[in-house]
Amino acid sequence: MDRHEVIKEIVTGSGGKIVLLVMDGLGDLPNDGKTPLMKAKTPNMDSLAEKSELGQTIPVLYGITPGSGPGHLALFGYDPIKYQIGRGILEALGIGIEVGKDDMVARGNFATIKDGVIVDRRAGRPPTEESARIVEILKNNIKEIDGVKIEFYPGKEHRFVVKFTAEWLDDAISDADPQKEGKPMEWAKALKPGAEKTAEVVNKLIRKIGEILKDNPKINWALLRGFSKYPKLPQFPEVYKVRAGAIATYPMYRGIAKLVGMEVLQTGDTIEDELETLKSHWNDYDFFYFHVKKTDSYGEDGKFNEKVHVIEETDAIIPEILNLGPDVLVITGDHSTPCLMKSHSWHPVPFLIHSKFVRKGLSKEFNEFECARGTLGTFYALDAMTLMLAHAGRLEKFGA
Amino acid sequence: MDRHEVIKEIVTGSGGKIVLLVMDGLGDLPNDGKTPLMKAKTPNMDSLAEKSELGQTIPVLYGITPGSGPGHLALFGYDPIKYQIGRGILEALGIGIEVGKDDMVARGNFATIKDGVIVDRRAGRPPTEESARIVEILKNNIKEIDGVKIEFYPGKEHRFVVKFTAEWLDDAISDADPQKEGKPMEWAKALKPGAEKTAEVVNKLIRKIGEILKDNPKINWALLRGFSKYPKLPQFPEVYKVRAGAIATYPMYRGIAKLVGMEVLQTGDTIEDELETLKSHWNDYDFFYFHVKKTDSYGEDGKFNEKVHVIEETDAIIPEILNLGPDVLVITGDHSTPCLMKSHSWHPVPFLIHSKFVRKGLSKEFNEFECARGTLGTFYALDAMTLMLAHAGRLEKFGA
Repeated sequence: MDRHEVIKEIVTGSGGKIVLLVMDGLGDLPNDGKTPLMKAKTPNMDSLAEKSELGQTIPVLYGITPGSGPGHLALFGYDPIKYQIGRGILEALGIGIEVGKDDMVARGNFATIKDGVIVDRRAGRPPTEESARIVEILKNNIKEIDGVKIEFYPGKEHRFVVKFTAEWLDDAISDADPQKEGKPMEWAKALKPGAEKTAEVVNKLIRKIGEILKDNPKINWALLRGFSKYPKLPQFPEVYKVRAGAIATYPMYRGIAKLVGMEVLQTGDTIEDELETLKSHWNDYDFFYFHVKKTDSYGEDGKFNEKVHVIEETDAIIPEILNLGPDVLVITGDHSTPCLMKSHSWHPVPFLIHSKFVRKGLSKEFNEFECARGTLGTFYALDAMTLMLAHAGRLEKFGA
Repeated sequence: MDRHEVIKEIVTGSGGKIVLLVMDGLGDLPNDGKTPLMKAKTPNMDSLAEKSELGQTIPVLYGITPGSGPGHLALFGYDPIKYQIGRGILEALGIGIEVGKDDMVARGNFATIKDGVIVDRRAGRPPTEESARIVEILKNNIKEIDGVKIEFYPGKEHRFVVKFTAEWLDDAISDADPQKEGKPMEWAKALKPGAEKTAEVVNKLIRKIGEILKDNPKINWALLRGFSKYPKLPQFPEVYKVRAGAIATYPMYRGIAKLVGMEVLQTGDTIEDELETLKSHWNDYDFFYFHVKKTDSYGEDGKFNEKVHVIEETDAIIPEILNLGPDVLVITGDHSTPCLMKSHSWHPVPFLIHSKFVRKGLSKEFNEFECARGTLGTFYALDAMTLMLAHAGRLEKFGA
């Protein structure tokens, strides 16, 4: 029996309000004995830890480093191995593109090609405006290939997105990208019978782009990858019977939230903006997904002190969140991003849950080591949703 | 989606070197408050514990006591419930018999039969030499039945192994063994259509053995069980993209390593011999499985002090292993063998992983209790392989 079927049988549709605060890439490794979470002055999280249960989550499987997609899906209660989402979709959602059932999207890179060899996969990282100008040129010159409607969307720097629209498209095709520089162009190939025609359209499109851009010194080629149609995911409000609002500053996370059926709320660029959004929509939703991006960004850059600072900044809003009176507050991450590694990692993620119904009193601090020894133990992030719903009084007894 | 499919998608085929040191039956129970691992003077493992992550593994499922086969398969990342290996094969591998694709093997017991009733399933536990003499007689008298080549191999006391060779053999047949004494002989039966002919050959063989031995007072019958052909397991170098070398002194473990596609290295009888083998092959492999047998043997014999001594002996080689510069060193067991129980047990197994990317500093000792509270938590032994590959930088991110 599928996990969602079990939940649907026992979920009540009434109960307390839940705030899921996700500090992206929160987990880390000790540097001189302390992780950023240990180093940060977090009086509010620490005092909350005393009144909460701690544990640590495994995002996908032991040893598996998740991308943002799988990391978040797991936290939202979707098995990240069962529900695999193409990068094209995530990128498209990330820049706010509408994707429907006849659409296929792909991530694009402007690149530099010379004598058939990809010499720069990012065309020297052009400024975003320059890249947007090129996208305009492509838009004006390419509208359709073999009956497939083609649309271009600008992204940051060398990035852009292509949307293909036709009923018969099949996204089981390989990346049109050699992945490494100094290698000849790699063309899209069908990975399953039936996808040949889609691969052909993609390759024709790339040749046409090359033709149009051939006189440019740097941006004279395009690589396309992560071809994906819109995935049909069970919808959050239907499975969990909650009105769910998402507060996130980055398009990618807004996109994932939309994919699972949350309502994505307008917000600003800072944590304070996000807090204001939470306050102003407090009465509209039962479940809030509140995303803090910069912990991950600084982890990826290896900036330990900056990561510490974002944690402190987030700590500062905890009292205001508590003042709103959530029945359940969870503070966690979608994965670890150790500064030492400058990348996502497989390490377990600190998890704190606060409600009236907790085995509190074991820990006095919120950090990786306390969480490793917490009352919740080590568990799969996939289990976080039922735990939150339970603490909110939203699940009935299973079986008589 | 199968675990191995997920791994194949993200494994890189390059990265660091891994040493998996398996102290067989390592886990134990406290005796006057201390387990052998706590009692042993292990300065090297303790100092390593400070710089490593600890946890404890569940070999198969909570409460399930694994044999050597399942215990090792799990550590090698093969679900021990999905991949069940016949006892015949393990017994055959254990005494160094070559088994190929047309071979089927079975474990044999010499037994005593009287008026069609099995009165002693072990024929009074004859001395090994006596049993070997009987095997010689059978060898000389039976070479073939209905076109199936028959070979006998002596084992310890009442045990022996039969190898059947023919293209068409089907191992889906029941044991030719009533399992209990005082019961009439139970004959092999086909468990699936197509296996009838194989069952018939087995039963003819047993009648023939009975005929040859009928005048012996004790050893006058044979029971055969655990019929198994050579199992096709996904191969280690293919799934994990590592060159894997196995260092083990006992045939059983060499056999299991071979089964999963490791190269089994020639070595001597002692831990020091094994260390020399590791050193001399250091540049030939990415992954070393290094097996220490005697922790289990002394556990099985209930010899607490001797088990302590083997642990100390193993501790002494840790600096030499570290000097080789492995990127990842794991110290663990395949299961627990508590001296108190004189047998394998279901108890979780201490696990230590050392690499550059660990949440170190929580524990100062390597033992069952520290491992139970370690940063890795309690996890399935099945997860150990991905964890090792991740720490060696051999896995890419899963999803975008």
